[in-house]
Amino acid sequence: MGRVAVVGTGQTKFEARVPEKTYYELAFDVAKEALNEAGITHRDVDSAVYGIYNDLFERQVMPDTFVHDYLGFYGKSGTRVTTGGATGAYAFRAGYAEVASGLSDTTIVIGVEKAQDVFDWAQYKSTPEVLKSIAYSSDMTWEYPLGVQAASSYALLATAHMRKYGTTEEQAALVSVKNHGNAKNNPYAQSPMDITVEDVMKSRMISYPFKMLDCSLYTEGASAVILMSEKKVREMGISDPVWVAGIGSSNDRSFPGFRSVNDFLGNYGDIADLRGHYEAARIAYRAAGIQNPLKELDLAEIHDAFSFTEIQGYEAMGLAHPGKGGKFIEDGIPQIHGDLPVSPSGGLIGAGHAVGATGVMQIVEITKQLTGEAGKRQVEIRNGKGLAHSIGGPGSSYCTVTILEA
Amino acid sequence: MGRVAVVGTGQTKFEARVPEKTYYELAFDVAKEALNEAGITHRDVDSAVYGIYNDLFERQVMPDTFVHDYLGFYGKSGTRVTTGGATGAYAFRAGYAEVASGLSDTTIVIGVEKAQDVFDWAQYKSTPEVLKSIAYSSDMTWEYPLGVQAASSYALLATAHMRKYGTTEEQAALVSVKNHGNAKNNPYAQSPMDITVEDVMKSRMISYPFKMLDCSLYTEGASAVILMSEKKVREMGISDPVWVAGIGSSNDRSFPGFRSVNDFLGNYGDIADLRGHYEAARIAYRAAGIQNPLKELDLAEIHDAFSFTEIQGYEAMGLAHPGKGGKFIEDGIPQIHGDLPVSPSGGLIGAGHAVGATGVMQIVEITKQLTGEAGKRQVEIRNGKGLAHSIGGPGSSYCTVTILEA
Repeated sequence: MGRVAVVGTGQTKFEARVPEKTYYELAFDVAKEALNEAGITHRDVDSAVYGIYNDLFERQVMPDTFVHDYLGFYGKSGTRVTTGGATGAYAFRAGYAEVASGLSDTTIVIGVEKAQDVFDWAQYKSTPEVLKSIAYSSDMTWEYPLGVQAASSYALLATAHMRKYGTTEEQAALVSVKNHGNAKNNPYAQSPMDITVEDVMKSRMISYPFKMLDCSLYTEGASAVILMSEKKVREMGISDPVWVAGIGSSNDRSFPGFRSVNDFLGNYGDIADLRGHYEAARIAYRAAGIQNPLKELDLAEIHDAFSFTEIQGYEAMGLAHPGKGGKFIEDGIPQIHGDLPVSPSGGLIGAGHAVGATGVMQIVEITKQLTGEAGKRQVEIRNGKGLAHSIGGPGSSYCTVTILEA
Repeated sequence: MGRVAVVGTGQTKFEARVPEKTYYELAFDVAKEALNEAGITHRDVDSAVYGIYNDLFERQVMPDTFVHDYLGFYGKSGTRVTTGGATGAYAFRAGYAEVASGLSDTTIVIGVEKAQDVFDWAQYKSTPEVLKSIAYSSDMTWEYPLGVQAASSYALLATAHMRKYGTTEEQAALVSVKNHGNAKNNPYAQSPMDITVEDVMKSRMISYPFKMLDCSLYTEGASAVILMSEKKVREMGISDPVWVAGIGSSNDRSFPGFRSVNDFLGNYGDIADLRGHYEAARIAYRAAGIQNPLKELDLAEIHDAFSFTEIQGYEAMGLAHPGKGGKFIEDGIPQIHGDLPVSPSGGLIGAGHAVGATGVMQIVEITKQLTGEAGKRQVEIRNGKGLAHSIGGPGSSYCTVTILEA
């Protein structure tokens, strides 16, 4: 079985609102950019995988079919993947499988999300569609009646980590400071800011221990990558592409403590340590032949839906020992000029979280970094290896880790 | 690259309403049955692909995460695919790619749909969720204001076929008579009935030329298949499994005539002939090495969302010449004892259309037929080859054709 390469990338600026474009126009922009970068046309594409999370945001079921149409992909296969906050990463996995299986030689993976078209701008309030799309993302049978939603479920994971390991709000705030700061060098980022730990601590409380500045953003945008079989890469004479070295996905239980009496009695184990994330990393590292990630990786994009989530990510990705994620950021290791830069893009907190597009954006960032095209935010490339960590779902049930190699 | 086998199948009875079970309980039932049939346990499964169409039917975003949890699949990869009426078929494609790519040795594909939990039974009327989930499935920008929805878009395809080829309502009614009749021998079917062409013609008008009995049904249920790599099949000592011989997917434009001025001026071409369906068949036949499908196939399950759709399917699958689909059923060829039985399960009209589950149910049916386990509806197996044709989307934009071989 031949390898699979990333041969083209595209991204829009991530913004709070892009009122002038529909989701299919955003998808068109990134597809065109990725095709141009790969030096191919839409005729060379065999199939598409779409990462689009939410039907309610756009009052549109099957949005992928209109993207496919608008892109002129008539006759080609098009599959939509949706897995919460990790939608883009699982779409990338499905795109990899399309090519590695031999079903396609060239596959485009497009992540896109619009979220604000259904916002009621006249009265400046959320519409039922927006509220439902968020409410319905917790388990409607058991969790929703208990008030468990996106922020509050991740907050429970964070407080468990604080209790078990003594992780502090100030340590988490350092993640926010770093990522808003990194975003200043990313022209595609939504929220570049110079802030301090104190600014984070003083920002409005959302769900303890998350303050406003601990949280990622509501974002619109798109990202795309083109995947190609090794055989086709050779035929096309593409030199030095970025290769997919390993993918690990592991879906853990959805939010623990509420799903059943068994969980309530503690069968999940300890929610301070996200088992699925550890397992996804293990699978990906084994596939990529990585033994010491901290030494072998040149950078990582870690899913910082919330600041504490990135700290838990350091540990699950084997960059810090369990419980030492807070010290890892205190020691400056994940800073842009640290030993292992994490989220030079700005991550979800700094660059934005355009749900379906986010996981693809991480792949775009790693690809640009590994090929030395990351401009002002370029990190030092020694081993030519980078990692993308994408999560989603209630209680962070989805996790995919992707390792790229130049 | 080794082949991929179907080594286990499971299905629930398709019913209008299964009030006593949640979607994750239905998924559990079919997963257990498929695992038992394969002679493996849930520990042997490397990954899962879920075909679940609609979030609004259950007031639940990310329903797959709760299925994954309920099935005890902690730690394994789980991906959700959603592509309208063809959701189950594209989930099967993604499951095939999981195994053929080497990402997994054993993958379970589960299709499940509940649709009636949000129906207002007390007042016996649809809730906003039900109405929206159907309304939002046409393009909200261009088509919805023109009244194009599920039945009316397929009706336009049918009237185009009638005008171009002279296909009659009576010919289409024969499909309904056949499929309701086949369902009598399928214990899993929702709508077994002895009816006549006259009964179909006299049934209530829905959207010309579709009467009530031309339409498939609102259905709840689940289906599952277990896919395994050739290497693993040999290791497990599984003898004579059913192999995936070819998959072709082709997504055509979404509904023509409304998407743009270009379409309105006729750039789509002729909507009587469903280009995407022809293309999907071409790809699948080439992969499976089939030259004369009418002679080489032993049976086909053709997606009869509406009676006319099956007639258009005969033609696109190369079983009848373009325009001769009406005569094909008049001549009795697709009858259960005809030269090429079509939809011995009863199809969507007779067996039911549990959206995400339907495409998987077709694979279950073909597998059972090829292995001689189809009971009273068993067709004669000569070449050991069967075809499943699954479609969906506005204007039938999604199409996947899968060929299995015993």
